[in-house]
Amino acid sequence: MLSTFFNPRGIAIIGASRDPHKLGYGIIRNLVEHHYPGAIYPLNPVAKEILGHKCYANITQVPDPLDLAILIIPAKLAADPLTQCGERGIKHVIVASGGFRETGPQGKALEERLYQIARKYQMRLLGPNCMGVIDTHIPVNTTFMAGMPHAGDIGFLSQSGAMVAAVTDWARGAGVGFSRIVSLGNQVDVNETEMLTAFAEDHQTRVITAYIEGITDGRAFIDTAEKVARQKPVVVLKAGLGKSGAKAVASHTGALAGSAEVYQAAFRQSGVLRARTMEELFDLARGLAWQPLPEGNRVAILTNAGGPGILAVDALEAAGLTLATLSDQTRDYLRARLPGPASLANPVDILAGSGPGTYAIALDALLSDPTVDAALVIQAPQDWFLPASLAEVIGEVAAVHHKPVLASLMGLASIDQALTILHRKRIPNFAFPEGAAAPLAAMVARKKWLRGSAGVLPATKTVDQQKARNYLAQNHFADFLGEFDIQGPPTKLAQNAREAAQIAGEIGYPVALKLFSRERTHKTDIGALKLNLENREAVLAAYKDILKAVEKNAPGTTIEGILVQKMLSGGQEVIVGIRRDPQFGPLVLVGSGGVEVELLRDVEMAIAPIGESQAQAMLDATRAGTRLNGWRGTPPGDRAAVIEVMLRMSQIALQFPEISELEINPLYVLPEGKGAFAVDVRGAKEGGYESTRV
Amino acid sequence: MLSTFFNPRGIAIIGASRDPHKLGYGIIRNLVEHHYPGAIYPLNPVAKEILGHKCYANITQVPDPLDLAILIIPAKLAADPLTQCGERGIKHVIVASGGFRETGPQGKALEERLYQIARKYQMRLLGPNCMGVIDTHIPVNTTFMAGMPHAGDIGFLSQSGAMVAAVTDWARGAGVGFSRIVSLGNQVDVNETEMLTAFAEDHQTRVITAYIEGITDGRAFIDTAEKVARQKPVVVLKAGLGKSGAKAVASHTGALAGSAEVYQAAFRQSGVLRARTMEELFDLARGLAWQPLPEGNRVAILTNAGGPGILAVDALEAAGLTLATLSDQTRDYLRARLPGPASLANPVDILAGSGPGTYAIALDALLSDPTVDAALVIQAPQDWFLPASLAEVIGEVAAVHHKPVLASLMGLASIDQALTILHRKRIPNFAFPEGAAAPLAAMVARKKWLRGSAGVLPATKTVDQQKARNYLAQNHFADFLGEFDIQGPPTKLAQNAREAAQIAGEIGYPVALKLFSRERTHKTDIGALKLNLENREAVLAAYKDILKAVEKNAPGTTIEGILVQKMLSGGQEVIVGIRRDPQFGPLVLVGSGGVEVELLRDVEMAIAPIGESQAQAMLDATRAGTRLNGWRGTPPGDRAAVIEVMLRMSQIALQFPEISELEINPLYVLPEGKGAFAVDVRGAKEGGYESTRV
Repeated sequence: MLSTFFNPRGIAIIGASRDPHKLGYGIIRNLVEHHYPGAIYPLNPVAKEILGHKCYANITQVPDPLDLAILIIPAKLAADPLTQCGERGIKHVIVASGGFRETGPQGKALEERLYQIARKYQMRLLGPNCMGVIDTHIPVNTTFMAGMPHAGDIGFLSQSGAMVAAVTDWARGAGVGFSRIVSLGNQVDVNETEMLTAFAEDHQTRVITAYIEGITDGRAFIDTAEKVARQKPVVVLKAGLGKSGAKAVASHTGALAGSAEVYQAAFRQSGVLRARTMEELFDLARGLAWQPLPEGNRVAILTNAGGPGILAVDALEAAGLTLATLSDQTRDYLRARLPGPASLANPVDILAGSGPGTYAIALDALLSDPTVDAALVIQAPQDWFLPASLAEVIGEVAAVHHKPVLASLMGLASIDQALTILHRKRIPNFAFPEGAAAPLAAMVARKKWLRGSAGVLPATKTVDQQKARNYLAQNHFADFLGEFDIQGPPTKLAQNAREAAQIAGEIGYPVALKLFSRERTHKTDIGALKLNLENREAVLAAYKDILKAVEKNAPGTTIEGILVQKMLSGGQEVIVGIRRDPQFGPLVLVGSGGVEVELLRDVEMAIAPIGESQAQAMLDATRAGTRLNGWRGTPPGDRAAVIEVMLRMSQIALQFPEISELEINPLYVLPEGKGAFAVDVRGAKEGGYESTRV
Repeated sequence: MLSTFFNPRGIAIIGASRDPHKLGYGIIRNLVEHHYPGAIYPLNPVAKEILGHKCYANITQVPDPLDLAILIIPAKLAADPLTQCGERGIKHVIVASGGFRETGPQGKALEERLYQIARKYQMRLLGPNCMGVIDTHIPVNTTFMAGMPHAGDIGFLSQSGAMVAAVTDWARGAGVGFSRIVSLGNQVDVNETEMLTAFAEDHQTRVITAYIEGITDGRAFIDTAEKVARQKPVVVLKAGLGKSGAKAVASHTGALAGSAEVYQAAFRQSGVLRARTMEELFDLARGLAWQPLPEGNRVAILTNAGGPGILAVDALEAAGLTLATLSDQTRDYLRARLPGPASLANPVDILAGSGPGTYAIALDALLSDPTVDAALVIQAPQDWFLPASLAEVIGEVAAVHHKPVLASLMGLASIDQALTILHRKRIPNFAFPEGAAAPLAAMVARKKWLRGSAGVLPATKTVDQQKARNYLAQNHFADFLGEFDIQGPPTKLAQNAREAAQIAGEIGYPVALKLFSRERTHKTDIGALKLNLENREAVLAAYKDILKAVEKNAPGTTIEGILVQKMLSGGQEVIVGIRRDPQFGPLVLVGSGGVEVELLRDVEMAIAPIGESQAQAMLDATRAGTRLNGWRGTPPGDRAAVIEVMLRMSQIALQFPEISELEINPLYVLPEGKGAFAVDVRGAKEGGYESTRV
């Protein structure tokens, strides 16, 4: 049970020191200063006692209760004490010391040695190279850093010890309370995914925030995160999403950072909310932990000044929220009670002269209106009344309605007291009103995700597995797809111009001719694709042109023949593909196809398996999907056929792990009811052999 | 001279009060408390003196020096005292009172009356409905709100009094100094553009920030802003850029908010930097006011922890900055001086144990490296040394190099003293490192803008003005464009199917047929466009099909004929257009054309006139431009021809103000050297008559 890390009955500190400048002193100081209620056992070969706690020379001498050991000794010396912990029957160890994997191969070997020892004695090991844990409710603080946030309900898990220090310092200054904080260090044993579960089980934690550099096992993470997110909000700041950032993560932790798109898809699917900055991480956390979720995205703004109201409107709209259209009753009610020139449209502007009483009446009216899902209360600094009285009023009125209320008592110098009251009443406040938009949007997104189906998966199609595997073995990807009822347009391979013309006559004009070679994937680049051939003469000429073009533009290419293919018309081009991510496994993608796939970058991806509703949502999120709904005279395309292809590709991705990449581009989508055809298919299997064929 | 508002030798307060709860008291209190060095003349019919200053019953009795009057009396009573101010020879008046335009038509009439009086006596009037001015260096504070920021070099002008109050309160709390602050109120006379010039002339102001809801005269603003921006940075937060926000601005101030794209184009052209939030406004301001501009966009990151370094990398990359690749010399130098496991790649991680001395050595090395244009120094909270000592070191080392240095001494609780030192040393600090990205990007953008040519305009083409005007009078937009050498493909109008076939024979197959009617603009929607007609039979059939389709899909449409047009092939479709913005005047736009123009929304716009380099930059910013450079087998298009069309359209926009809208879509761009043809042209003139024709 990882919870023992946060609630041990006794803690041994191996490497305890009497020297106030040493980390081995800082840990004991923190346990003592922050009122750890359990037993504290400093281990020190010479000292008698440290800060009033009796010292021991050896862990075997330490009496019960003893649930946790903290190692703060040089990396090279850690193995023996860890073994002794195992012998003593300790099941939880924090290795706070650095000098392991982060310093190079030698350190990595030391780290792996520790892991072997931990395995042998069935110990769980947090770290090495970590700050340890904080639980403000027990309370326990195993870190050596000065200060501790006050008790609250935000949990924070971090793959960077520095971020733990920074967040702790920030939390103390900002007066934001935390429940648990954990520094994961090098994660030789306990990782972010397991810790997520431990935070989920903690009743004091109402929202889990995380600073993540890399994920140990993407698949396990999203499965766990989805379960946890059903219980309580999970908000993640993923570092290293940019190209250079990914490199920096790799050089910092050795972790594979993964692409931004894949992480975003993984987070979206598992209900994990994403923060873009550290400040936003805790803005979202306060909204999610302190206020109820809104039923919808209609926000009412209550303000004593026009300008800040407009800023709020801009920010809410940019975040995908809408302004509530107030009911006539609410307007009438407000009209009778607000000063004459007050604005009764949303934002409701009660004007500078109004006090907390007017705020109370108006806020109550807004929250009573069924057209309002959430409210933002803004106060521009004024000298008429005590801002703290407005803080009291907001907290009081919000508490009787089950709708989220956020505040922007603006400024800094004049609102200290008000801020304390707002924190106590669990109303998140922002120095400028724009700050409220991201948390409100996250709350709406979470509500929507919780409401969504838990992802019912479609029945897998039964196929002739033997036949499918045979095709795959020969890299006949198009035939392979045929087994899943993903068909290409009628096509045959010709070895000379006459044969091409004969085939064209059989399958019917117009036809396309294209080079068949395993070596070239972008046929249009070298002129090896001829379209719209209407008759025999055109086919004969095109055949020769292709040979000439290949000779000129790509001499040396092995020409295995020229494909003759019936041309489809009146449809739209879509790309559907499978990729395999090193961290999250199989992905399905869909988007605008054809030659412009890279130019438009109109692609959505999701981690397989996907269900029908998810396939629909993916398609809806692309411009390709917009086009398929019918666009400017283009008839609606056969969306159902595209969805079916996506679901089959999802199935293939799971059933054939040897396929590392498979791409239908274009999937040619005819008008509604007429199907979709895999015009070009490109695949690659584990080991690297790649084939281009229709 | 607007500068008198900030530096009057004597101020009369009309509506002064002895009652501490009244605004007329607050103003005098602020003048006194904040040490206004000039004469203070309270006007009050009964009081003898207020706060030690002798009261006067009438403005005519007030002795010299008297340069400024502040009116803080009910709107209805303001006209007479203002007239008396005029008689007394006062040239500058602040009308602080509300109750004017913002309350409705009656208030608006009162406001206009004040304006007439001001005109008559050649008085400049700030407000009404405003907070007045602050100049921290004089010092003078004509507002009635409590508190004043300390002296600094950031100027802030605001179209919202509430934002002035919020920013003042925030500045006091955050310890950020300001030079001047002005609340513009209803702007019946003095507006944001004039005030911009006044701030430009103030030597204490090093950066001008503005909260803008609407711009009085877009044209005048960008002309002025460009001049001012050449002298000192201008950063604007434009409120009301979203749809709902624009509505809110309109209902708040009656100002036309204008579209986000046009404002962005206007700001970009005039060198105005845009902030997205209030916090960013002053983040940018601190960077621009306190630090030199970087020569390029290569940033070095110096940190004592990996995680925050990665966050910084992500944020810098997202903002368009790059990580400097350090020279070998720098790396060697650092290797010899930093702890063994320190990271010598950028970010340079000197590790947790390093102190301010190591920071000093490393920062000096980084700033000495010619590969580095700017540096960001990060400190994760630690207990080894006093953060204030690092603040001293950063300020000292930065001062001897002419490169910008920003800091992120992270956290809040532990860095109070450090922050004070950083402010004094003019080093902007951010609680988390992501905050440094936007200011650095703005500094790079400003440097680039200052370097850019001041926009050399191309020679205007000489055309037969009479002929052009005749075409325009008849709404023959295509012929009109022909006068500017913008040609369409060969085209004729047919009145029956046989005539269409005959024309097709003359101009050559393939041809397109399309409905000619003033009533329909989206011909593809109703099936009134037939393409790729290869022979006489196809033309005859298509003619009938169009008539049938129009009857079915748009019965009642007046059919003025069917156009027969030679079809061009092998080219790319671009849109080039003119729009007229109510605030900024003529705009030129360019982007991806064809039926997908609305789907792709790939359009860049600029305010006319534009020069060649700007036309190039606009094209480069679109995907249409990327495509024209050659894409996947598509040969490069005739960019020069597109640029020429853009420049001619810019000329037309200026020379023919009666054209409210003109759009070439598609401009069909053939391969390099082969020209571009206006396939479809749509225009509209002032007054609303609209014509569709080729």
